Amino acid sequence: MTSTTQIRLAARPVGEPQDSDFDFTTTEVPELADGQVLLRTIYLSLDPYMRGRMSAAKSYADPVEVGDVMVGATVCEVVESRAANRAVGDIVLAYTGWQTYAAADARATRRLDPQAAPISTALGVLGMPGFTAYAGLLAIGRPQPGETVAVAAATGPVGSAVGQIAKVKGAGAVGIAGGPEKCRALLDDFGFDAAVDHRSPTFREDLAAATPDGVDVYFENVAGPVGAAVTRRLNLYARVPVCGLVANYNATQAPDGPDQLPAYLGMILTQSLTVRGFIQSEFVPTHHDDFLRDMAGWVADGSVRYREDVVQGLESTVEAFRGLLTGRNFGKLLVQVGTDPTAG
Amino acid sequence: MTSTTQIRLAARPVGEPQDSDFDFTTTEVPELADGQVLLRTIYLSLDPYMRGRMSAAKSYADPVEVGDVMVGATVCEVVESRAANRAVGDIVLAYTGWQTYAAADARATRRLDPQAAPISTALGVLGMPGFTAYAGLLAIGRPQPGETVAVAAATGPVGSAVGQIAKVKGAGAVGIAGGPEKCRALLDDFGFDAAVDHRSPTFREDLAAATPDGVDVYFENVAGPVGAAVTRRLNLYARVPVCGLVANYNATQAPDGPDQLPAYLGMILTQSLTVRGFIQSEFVPTHHDDFLRDMAGWVADGSVRYREDVVQGLESTVEAFRGLLTGRNFGKLLVQVGTDPTAG
Repeated sequence: MTSTTQIRLAARPVGEPQDSDFDFTTTEVPELADGQVLLRTIYLSLDPYMRGRMSAAKSYADPVEVGDVMVGATVCEVVESRAANRAVGDIVLAYTGWQTYAAADARATRRLDPQAAPISTALGVLGMPGFTAYAGLLAIGRPQPGETVAVAAATGPVGSAVGQIAKVKGAGAVGIAGGPEKCRALLDDFGFDAAVDHRSPTFREDLAAATPDGVDVYFENVAGPVGAAVTRRLNLYARVPVCGLVANYNATQAPDGPDQLPAYLGMILTQSLTVRGFIQSEFVPTHHDDFLRDMAGWVADGSVRYREDVVQGLESTVEAFRGLLTGRNFGKLLVQVGTDPTAG
Repeated sequence: MTSTTQIRLAARPVGEPQDSDFDFTTTEVPELADGQVLLRTIYLSLDPYMRGRMSAAKSYADPVEVGDVMVGATVCEVVESRAANRAVGDIVLAYTGWQTYAAADARATRRLDPQAAPISTALGVLGMPGFTAYAGLLAIGRPQPGETVAVAAATGPVGSAVGQIAKVKGAGAVGIAGGPEKCRALLDDFGFDAAVDHRSPTFREDLAAATPDGVDVYFENVAGPVGAAVTRRLNLYARVPVCGLVANYNATQAPDGPDQLPAYLGMILTQSLTVRGFIQSEFVPTHHDDFLRDMAGWVADGSVRYREDVVQGLESTVEAFRGLLTGRNFGKLLVQVGTDPTAG
């Protein structure tokens, strides 16, 4: 028998998740059934959507039940197999959550080729975050050559891909991030045309200066004051793919007034805006094959670069997740839960 | 020389327009230039968009300057002509505004056929309001057979057309209006499937009962509490053409909190909504020919019915316009400024 250390949801967080909202438990992994594999977690992906899963509120996916292991995408090594198409030593993408070992149906895993790309990228630029950027920007944002694309949380895995794909498509990319170090990375590492620090006291003026021709596509993944400032810069017929609202995720009630909704609807009307919420899964049937081909090519030829922020050990997970909601991470946030046998 | 009585904007209204915001002036109509016609106003259209024109705020059209005649679409009789293609006695659609007579370029008028339809319909069901309904519903809302379309101000010229076009396309139509008399008209005169009175203390429950399968298209022309209630009923992938925000037009500042914007964005995200502002003029190149053909046919065969609310005399204009913003009219609001020579 193999034992696994798990992080289970102990209580639904109110506001910012607390340590007491989670239980660390060690338990035995059940015997494998036919068609299953035993997986050892190497990397666990931490993503903002997980905050929604901790809540009971209606959303686009079922909440995690109190007492259940927190969900999440992982890159794992197969350590035992009762599936014909998976061998011990295979590296796979799985969805085994916040734990060190798990049994999973082989069909719910995808085998990765460690020669093609670092295995961690299956959780970032070549995985769900990269696809979120690709599908939202291209299917909804539809940037045209010469237009301006703006995105916040721009050094994150979604934001950095949005800006770089915009550049590939001939649009200008304006990134918004917190602090001078991240802004420098936007210009030097990710090739954005402009970077704006939302922590600066002159943020609004800086944003206006960085978008002299306004904004044609605002990829919304934060909302809050940053979203409000970009909304004022939107051009006629601008498109707003709504991908995430991180600024609101820990909110326990509607914020104090004034009520900004009438002004927002007024902008939608007078600027003929298109605001479109989406979850990446909607576009898997129509766009995922193109994504895998395009994005692998862009990463290989250097058009799209990526950055990872790897914290060590499952015990760091809760603290790292809190940081994700406030922008403390710098790049795609991963927890290294176990040894990476492919690391050079 | 012909004299004209004009209503000019005397001051930009703060909140609800007051009598003192307008001046009544009588002046001489200038001599006609070549290519011009002298027009006698028969019907003046009053429409919610005019409230925006009274404000200096940036919008999709230039504001009316203080001292200028208020703008508006009119149906007029040609009483003098220096244009080859317009004869005395012709009835034309023009944009001569709140006045009794005006000189206009013949090219800025469209000749109407009084045999084809009552001339007043060029300001309503066969005019801009009808086209607004047609374009917004079909180009943005895209109702599918069996889906549910909801619209407020539903006995108005836009709302009543929205619901009836939805029915033509095989969707269900739920209308929202103020008071039992209007709700009865929705069912008996306009053929809606359900009518909900937004003045009822049980409005939210009534709306839920009237939309057991949720709402797939919400044609937004009012916003405010009615819009908020319908938003909660929206289904996954619902479409929201944003055509008007009458509830907000007299607002002088952002309303008190709580701030409803985060919850609204949350709905957009979790329900993958498409919210799209528009002005009918965007769709003239692509949809206006189809509109004239389709709508004339639907009016002729009884699929689309219309209702007019005609007040008498230019001196009634300001009071009637105030009523328009609070739903006092019942049907397309027109001011009969002069005798209709085609009336039977």
